[in-house]
Amino acid sequence: MASEHAQNDPSETYDEFETRVERISNVSNAAGILRWDQEVVMPAEGTPARAQQLSTLSSISHELLTADETGRLLEELESADLSADRSAVVREVRRQYDRETSVPGELVEQISTATTNAHPKWKRAKEEDDFEAFAPVLEELVELKREYAECIDPDADPYEVLFSEYEPYIDLETAERVLERLRDELVPLIDAIDDSDSELTTDAFAGAFDDDDQEALARDVLDALGYDWSRGRLDTAPHPFSSGTQFDARVTTRFESEDLLGSITSTIHEFGHANYTLGLPDEGYGTPLGEARDLSVHESQSRLWENHVGRSRPFWERFLPIARERFSELEDVTPEAAYESANQVYDDNLVRVEADELTYHLHIVIRFEIERDLVSGDLAVEDVPEAWNDKYEEYLGIRPETDSEGCLQDIHWSHGSFGYFPTYSLGSVLAAQLYAAAAADRGEFDGRIREGEFADLNGWLRENVHRHGKRYTTPELIERATGEALTADYFLEYVRTKYGELYDLEAY
Amino acid sequence: MASEHAQNDPSETYDEFETRVERISNVSNAAGILRWDQEVVMPAEGTPARAQQLSTLSSISHELLTADETGRLLEELESADLSADRSAVVREVRRQYDRETSVPGELVEQISTATTNAHPKWKRAKEEDDFEAFAPVLEELVELKREYAECIDPDADPYEVLFSEYEPYIDLETAERVLERLRDELVPLIDAIDDSDSELTTDAFAGAFDDDDQEALARDVLDALGYDWSRGRLDTAPHPFSSGTQFDARVTTRFESEDLLGSITSTIHEFGHANYTLGLPDEGYGTPLGEARDLSVHESQSRLWENHVGRSRPFWERFLPIARERFSELEDVTPEAAYESANQVYDDNLVRVEADELTYHLHIVIRFEIERDLVSGDLAVEDVPEAWNDKYEEYLGIRPETDSEGCLQDIHWSHGSFGYFPTYSLGSVLAAQLYAAAAADRGEFDGRIREGEFADLNGWLRENVHRHGKRYTTPELIERATGEALTADYFLEYVRTKYGELYDLEAY
Repeated sequence: MASEHAQNDPSETYDEFETRVERISNVSNAAGILRWDQEVVMPAEGTPARAQQLSTLSSISHELLTADETGRLLEELESADLSADRSAVVREVRRQYDRETSVPGELVEQISTATTNAHPKWKRAKEEDDFEAFAPVLEELVELKREYAECIDPDADPYEVLFSEYEPYIDLETAERVLERLRDELVPLIDAIDDSDSELTTDAFAGAFDDDDQEALARDVLDALGYDWSRGRLDTAPHPFSSGTQFDARVTTRFESEDLLGSITSTIHEFGHANYTLGLPDEGYGTPLGEARDLSVHESQSRLWENHVGRSRPFWERFLPIARERFSELEDVTPEAAYESANQVYDDNLVRVEADELTYHLHIVIRFEIERDLVSGDLAVEDVPEAWNDKYEEYLGIRPETDSEGCLQDIHWSHGSFGYFPTYSLGSVLAAQLYAAAAADRGEFDGRIREGEFADLNGWLRENVHRHGKRYTTPELIERATGEALTADYFLEYVRTKYGELYDLEAY
Repeated sequence: MASEHAQNDPSETYDEFETRVERISNVSNAAGILRWDQEVVMPAEGTPARAQQLSTLSSISHELLTADETGRLLEELESADLSADRSAVVREVRRQYDRETSVPGELVEQISTATTNAHPKWKRAKEEDDFEAFAPVLEELVELKREYAECIDPDADPYEVLFSEYEPYIDLETAERVLERLRDELVPLIDAIDDSDSELTTDAFAGAFDDDDQEALARDVLDALGYDWSRGRLDTAPHPFSSGTQFDARVTTRFESEDLLGSITSTIHEFGHANYTLGLPDEGYGTPLGEARDLSVHESQSRLWENHVGRSRPFWERFLPIARERFSELEDVTPEAAYESANQVYDDNLVRVEADELTYHLHIVIRFEIERDLVSGDLAVEDVPEAWNDKYEEYLGIRPETDSEGCLQDIHWSHGSFGYFPTYSLGSVLAAQLYAAAAADRGEFDGRIREGEFADLNGWLRENVHRHGKRYTTPELIERATGEALTADYFLEYVRTKYGELYDLEAY
């Protein structure tokens, strides 16, 4: 058989390979629709059947990917003379193939069972402020994920292996360097803000706002940013997300009557994700060429729109009049007041998901340092609460009084996700770098944002990021788009300028 | 290998088999969600990706079902000593396995391509009243389906084989006998109605009604009938349907401002389908024991609720006051007027989907006679329009002036569906038979319907039909539920009494 195949026309072999890859992709995309349905429209009692459907689709994807046939085709194609695009597809599938074939099915199942059990236990522990009830579960998850990492690469630092699950092409050292720099430079900046006498307007969006009007406004926002409704839709979900493909990339958001600003920024954030997906090339559908690069790049898109656009002064100059048409309550609010309220830095917030653009990264740094030490074994599970609280005191000058608002606040570890948090900060850093490069190429965007013109900015992102799918590795993509390697320079420059001006800081 | 397996514990073999069957079922149910999504919420441009996802899932189901392994397990289980339930599962899977393995993949693909092409051509031909443009496509589909039938059973009448695709356990002879009887007895009844001097109220629902209020009313209807919202939902779709599983069975409907009655009856019809699905046993999910019997039984459930309940006098006595709360326009309408308007027999309607309970079956008989002769070769495609028009003249006393309102009106043949139409009439006939048996067991339902109590009726259906899934063949199920074989007696008795009284017919 092998010799027969070896004589094959490489382009026929590639076609066979591509068909296989497309199949896997179609099964995964079908699962994506099932998950959207589950979060957005599924009736409450649909779970038992849905869980089985998703588990079946996931094991079919896994079997298709890890089949001997996939390995044979990969080997054959790796020694053939392929175009750059085809080589990229082979590279991406090889990576996934190697990871998935190296972990025994039994361990995958154990992890799946453990995380399924962990979720309700974490939820209850959080509700009851009972870390001890969650500790044994966390212990088990850390051990299982360590074992998992060892299967993939027994010689590597297990945390590095886990991090590369979410961010395969940025090495951990780079991530560490970026996070340390954020910590070292943001701590004094936040201190300076805390010490500042500036009085920002913080209540521009105070009040209670009707859900239906909030939804109409969210649609206005998406209209204004140029969301393609023929390939998308807006719905509500308890935890907003976006998902889909270049043909159908949907946004969800949520409305709380007392948090109008939150629903706007969250809608813009999810627009950024969906807009990236919509920029992937149609003809790449079904292979990595039509799929988004990994978590950091995805997050760079959501943060670029949420922060660099949606929290900018010209955006509020443009958008406040539109918001006023929906809400007469905003009649007396000025764009400047809206801008200030959207950029307030909190000195007493313990919750990551409610953090501002600056303190956010210290929340991440804390989680990163703790999970890295947990996985290496340098930190025992029982010592997590104290380590957490000490770090909050050290970096943010605040100390959680309960674990519910401390180390039990995030869902991630109960999912067995260790190494995920850093990608949030890397995304912010990359957003600033891309935004600066776009401005260098196409001119400063402030004037166009004030006019509601987003086509140039989006055109640059389409051209330099979206259309490439997974053609390039992440460092290559960043280098080609911005002319340099990933760096925190632009992010730090951006926040120093923005917050220096907002809080009238002398040293910035 | 075979001898090793032969020594297996049959219950282990059964478990292996069941896992396989559940997998196939989960893939099919996932595809069902994707189709619901496509009809109800998918953005317009989502089609290219969705088509690929569905095609992948369908070929995965097919491969899992027709794998050698399935055949081996079936053989082994057929010679083992199994419980009645397990034997039923084996029987159902065997039937599907034999059919799908006997048709070459190439022919399946040809049919799939031909129907994909046929649909837009049928649509244009209908719009442009151009049968000649559709004729070659129809010709091709008839030939392909004849070939398809021959693969499955070369010795059988091909139409019979096609019919059994939709109705595997009712033989064609029974269907023919029922349809002939409907034709022979309904033609004179309809003639008598046409000749009657009775003046029914026909305009109780005349007027234009707001969409949102219609939706609220549709929810009232579903509430009143006891729809389980924790396992279902209501949405709109251009062609109403229901789909799902016992954990999640959804209803769609549509609202036209000038057709309030149509939206109510269509909602009740789809409720009947969804309510059947919801009555399937939870523990049978994933195997035929948790799946609905075939098209006629499914249709019996929708028609029972739509006609025997929703078009009954006590229903309107109960429901009109509820409807009046939504629509002040109905203030002066009496329950009797509503009842009469919901049961008007049209003497000039050419369109099946707009037909009343009586003429409906002549629309079906005409299609049945034509498609049977088409498949046998007794009728040439080019002669369809004339045959169609002649039969309308003969049975209904009206003659279509165009093919658009004649033989081009239905989508079914463009899907390659020949043998589907009879199941509609069989469903009505079975509905009457089940309703009579339920009344014999639990007493006449009129009083309870007037009080809005549907639990007894539904309880009987759950007990005698729903909970069995595919445990029994259709004739067994009917015999057990009603004590006799499928018969048109109850339907004819029902319509004679109902319409004899409505139209004051002496002979009835």
